[in-house]
Amino acid sequence: MSDSRPIGIFDSGLGGLTVAREIFRLMPAERILYLGDTARCPYGVRSEETIREFGMQNARFLTSMDIKMLIVACNTVSSVALDYIRENVDEIPVIGVVLPACKAAVRQTAEKKIGVIGTSATIAAGAYEKTIRDMDSRIKVYSKACPLFVPIVEEGLMATEITRVAVAYYLYDLVDTGIDCLILGCTHYPLLMEAIQGIVGNHVQILDSGLWTAKEAQEILGALNAGAGKGRDGFAESKFYVTDVTPNFEKSANRFLGVRIGGVEKIGLDVLCAGVSSAQA
Amino acid sequence: MSDSRPIGIFDSGLGGLTVAREIFRLMPAERILYLGDTARCPYGVRSEETIREFGMQNARFLTSMDIKMLIVACNTVSSVALDYIRENVDEIPVIGVVLPACKAAVRQTAEKKIGVIGTSATIAAGAYEKTIRDMDSRIKVYSKACPLFVPIVEEGLMATEITRVAVAYYLYDLVDTGIDCLILGCTHYPLLMEAIQGIVGNHVQILDSGLWTAKEAQEILGALNAGAGKGRDGFAESKFYVTDVTPNFEKSANRFLGVRIGGVEKIGLDVLCAGVSSAQA
Repeated sequence: MSDSRPIGIFDSGLGGLTVAREIFRLMPAERILYLGDTARCPYGVRSEETIREFGMQNARFLTSMDIKMLIVACNTVSSVALDYIRENVDEIPVIGVVLPACKAAVRQTAEKKIGVIGTSATIAAGAYEKTIRDMDSRIKVYSKACPLFVPIVEEGLMATEITRVAVAYYLYDLVDTGIDCLILGCTHYPLLMEAIQGIVGNHVQILDSGLWTAKEAQEILGALNAGAGKGRDGFAESKFYVTDVTPNFEKSANRFLGVRIGGVEKIGLDVLCAGVSSAQA
Repeated sequence: MSDSRPIGIFDSGLGGLTVAREIFRLMPAERILYLGDTARCPYGVRSEETIREFGMQNARFLTSMDIKMLIVACNTVSSVALDYIRENVDEIPVIGVVLPACKAAVRQTAEKKIGVIGTSATIAAGAYEKTIRDMDSRIKVYSKACPLFVPIVEEGLMATEITRVAVAYYLYDLVDTGIDCLILGCTHYPLLMEAIQGIVGNHVQILDSGLWTAKEAQEILGALNAGAGKGRDGFAESKFYVTDVTPNFEKSANRFLGVRIGGVEKIGLDVLCAGVSSAQA
């Protein structure tokens, strides 16, 4: 048994391409339909209501194209609106990026102390904290919003003094907590890995929520017998939709995806907005 | 003769409230209809096509409400799409933030060397440079994009080490050019005034494009005999539309406006998108 339909993935921007990259690595035959809302990113500074609305518009766009699974690769939407999206998309599995990383961290922490960093909306929503506590109430969770990390990565400033100072500024409070695991609750943050590890120390295991999500997708497709089978080149047949082809687009996409992006198509916000209006009516 | 209709002002977010503040100060009887596209800011990282589209949507929304003048308080839209908006809004004066600041700088520079800083899109568009050269081709213009300044201000990090390092990082190249005027080509940048002045030195005159735009509006209304007259409380009768009421909204709005904001209403992106679709059809 196999299922040749594509996997849908959306993110506020291009950071979710790290999830796509890992899926291509783990399951080379899988096709992906990716939607990056580059005309409205970043989501992490917006209201819960708007995050829910944008997330649902993205979900609606992808589910209209006969996908077999929906991955919400945006930490902000996963933290704020995953239940809401699941209620409205009940025909296929919907995976967020929060649960997979929490499972991995709970398995790995010896000290029972886990750190979580993310955008303002992700941290304010408290989804990582709640998910970890539900698994093991003895674990202490230390959360910290790092709102400047996304623009720093978007601007490619990873190797500058600005990054070192910003990472130290945000993570200073986490250093003395005794955490032995730190979840990167944002798909942009792996690009700051070196600077983050330098501040928190080598004894802290850093977990990339995107990578663990790809593994979760693999497990679920395996359990459902819904893998794409073998022999196809999933990447070559994948499509990447964006709401804006920004000047930085190619450079940024290639950085997150790890290879040169192809099959890109721009879709208008009127399409996304219209889709949800009619769905809500 | 007077004209009691309101002045329309839009910006990608809340930074344009600095223009509104200055208008209330210069002309207390003027009513303002302000639109801040807080669900889609920042614009400075987006493509020209998208900036034009968003700018036109905002313009259309305000001109549908019988305003007597439209101020494009967004430097990015002013730099990329002002002519486009003027072509589509021909019944009332349309003012951008580029020309007023350029006029002031050209008057003030003794060394004939002017610096301009702004978002990536503003600097890439080259509108400040072209406008200054058109006025006086002997003037040298030194431009620099500072894309991290907006998120730094949005996050209220003005007094941190991050700001000092980021300002030094971006403005380092400008220091030895011999400029004696520096145009802040973004309504967020005045909040970094102290740090910027500290790097470029006290001999450099810093010009806030927003303030000069308010003066320009006053001159034009005077010339057209279209002021609001006297005796009204323009601020009390003004309205502020936003596309998202973000968690930081009140704090941020009050910071830019200088007083507590009132008369706020959220409008949906479907309204903005629909307005333009029908206008284009």
